[in-house]
Amino acid sequence: MSPHSPLNTALTTDRGFTLGDGLFETILWADGALHLLDLHLQRLEKGCEALSLPAPDPQACLDAAHKAIKDAGLTSTRAAVRLNWSAGPGGRGLDRPASPTPWISATAAPAPRPVTPARLVTASVRRNEGSPASRLKTLSYLDAVLARHEAMAAGADEALMLNNRDEVCCAAAANLLWLHRGVLHTPRRSCGVLDGTIRRVLVDSDIRVDKVVARLPDLRNIQGLWLSNALIGLRPVSNLDGWALPLPELPGDVTALVRAVCPD
Amino acid sequence: MSPHSPLNTALTTDRGFTLGDGLFETILWADGALHLLDLHLQRLEKGCEALSLPAPDPQACLDAAHKAIKDAGLTSTRAAVRLNWSAGPGGRGLDRPASPTPWISATAAPAPRPVTPARLVTASVRRNEGSPASRLKTLSYLDAVLARHEAMAAGADEALMLNNRDEVCCAAAANLLWLHRGVLHTPRRSCGVLDGTIRRVLVDSDIRVDKVVARLPDLRNIQGLWLSNALIGLRPVSNLDGWALPLPELPGDVTALVRAVCPD
Repeated sequence: MSPHSPLNTALTTDRGFTLGDGLFETILWADGALHLLDLHLQRLEKGCEALSLPAPDPQACLDAAHKAIKDAGLTSTRAAVRLNWSAGPGGRGLDRPASPTPWISATAAPAPRPVTPARLVTASVRRNEGSPASRLKTLSYLDAVLARHEAMAAGADEALMLNNRDEVCCAAAANLLWLHRGVLHTPRRSCGVLDGTIRRVLVDSDIRVDKVVARLPDLRNIQGLWLSNALIGLRPVSNLDGWALPLPELPGDVTALVRAVCPD
Repeated sequence: MSPHSPLNTALTTDRGFTLGDGLFETILWADGALHLLDLHLQRLEKGCEALSLPAPDPQACLDAAHKAIKDAGLTSTRAAVRLNWSAGPGGRGLDRPASPTPWISATAAPAPRPVTPARLVTASVRRNEGSPASRLKTLSYLDAVLARHEAMAAGADEALMLNNRDEVCCAAAANLLWLHRGVLHTPRRSCGVLDGTIRRVLVDSDIRVDKVVARLPDLRNIQGLWLSNALIGLRPVSNLDGWALPLPELPGDVTALVRAVCPD
């Protein structure tokens, strides 16, 4: 796309593009259905409250998602649907127009479940515990991009992110869960952690999940570490900063619960 | 723009839009010339290094800027030219394509100099001192949007932003400079502060500018506070969190230097 393209104006006056002013969701399409749709749409609505944006019509989200799957020819494939809710057109500067007109868009892409454990390295880029954006999926996702880039450059698959207080937060694109003394642990949201859908399913279930403030040394004696998100479900971590981690089975009830909402 | 628009695909697969993966510059056009162009292009190039993106061709930046001014009919108006350098098209997820193809775009809008002093309130949203993005003008600018929104909702013109260590950083869209015991002070970049062009001009000049780590109470006894950026030059602050600030003249050499690079 060149600066002289007719697409230029629409793009370069959209606040989603110019300022990262907007939200997104990444939803699993599998077995011919969108999974955890209610959680995704609730989170999007809460994000709109935090950003003072009008929330999208749930039916418009659904229509855009289904159209994206169909247009990409993925109706019978395991796919990721990305919904974008941009703050919409805007003038110069930071201030939104008096009546912002956000708009929905969606794309879909194949999303096979990763089959190997992940290797993690701790990124130098930190989560911003002092911004509500660190607890949301926003169109300002550069910190996660930089963290992932750093991890890949170090030969790993994914980044572990700390906040500015050196507290363990999450991966660049997943929550963290670990087993310690037989109990599941996950960082508190106040550390600067996304309210991930799989994390939420576990926290809201009868399974015990301790929400904790942890630092890197606390991960040295754990029984196992997993990444979680709507696309991968739970993915074991084999290595953190060159330190080999045990790869145990998860308790059967955890596995069953996550498999039900995140099928192959 | 609807999800069914032909513009949708180009926009929703651009990493500038989906992830805020890119940079921008806001350049003053006045007296028929782009001001501080070298500083803007140098900063853009340094930002590309930090983001591991190829840097734009300076001539392409210039061409895009001039075209934007002409297209907007602003050749004889004081205007702001916004240059965007997006990481370009990308697939699903955080990882860039093996060979990213960033692209330049530009828009222009009238930019009269504000004539009244600014009223500031301290925002709850913090700068992320732990990310290089807090020292760059990136397409992930949501924290600044949220801070400004908070300030406007409180009846102020602009937000003062702290980092997660409670250190004074900057405004949502300007650097901070204050006079204390006759000496200009400004927060250190390591606090999470943009390398602003006017700040840079002053720091690089013979004028003494002390780069400091300051907290809010340190601003209670100052002789005067100013916002600085490429468009406003220096704008006095009359009020911070309801506390009236003195509005003295700046030393003549400071005023002359800034007026020369930021004319009316």
